[in-house]
Amino acid sequence: MKAKVYITLKDGIHDPQGRAVQQSLHTLGFEAVQDVRVGKCLEIELQDMEKEAAEIFLKSMCQKLLANMVIEDFRYEIVST
Amino acid sequence: MKAKVYITLKDGIHDPQGRAVQQSLHTLGFEAVQDVRVGKCLEIELQDMEKEAAEIFLKSMCQKLLANMVIEDFRYEIVST
Repeated sequence: MKAKVYITLKDGIHDPQGRAVQQSLHTLGFEAVQDVRVGKCLEIELQDMEKEAAEIFLKSMCQKLLANMVIEDFRYEIVST
Repeated sequence: MKAKVYITLKDGIHDPQGRAVQQSLHTLGFEAVQDVRVGKCLEIELQDMEKEAAEIFLKSMCQKLLANMVIEDFRYEIVST
């Protein structure tokens, strides 16, 4: 089964990478860009399991490794079984 | 208006970052993980414009800066106007 995990900075956490992207876009003429925040998305292939078990599994992976819970939020979705 | 852009490696492109994440997950006991691929997601705040104009704008930004078209694919969605 396949899942997607999205890791994003919490609101209020400064995002220098996003700011750098925004400035580069302005330099290229995309001045309608008002803000950019950069996150990660992970596509994860899992062994087949019950959907409920997979959700617990994904949540645990995010909390233990994938996300820095101090500054990042996560969400996940199971896209195919 | 707010848009999201997802940048992912094309199929077949080697992903050492994803492999490292997979190995770390295995070390932590998440052995049901068979594959991990890491991409970027960007949340972009734009000045208000027509939806069609915004889509052209986003596509152009991806092609010119956000994605490396040789090894990466992109997709975008407008999440609020």
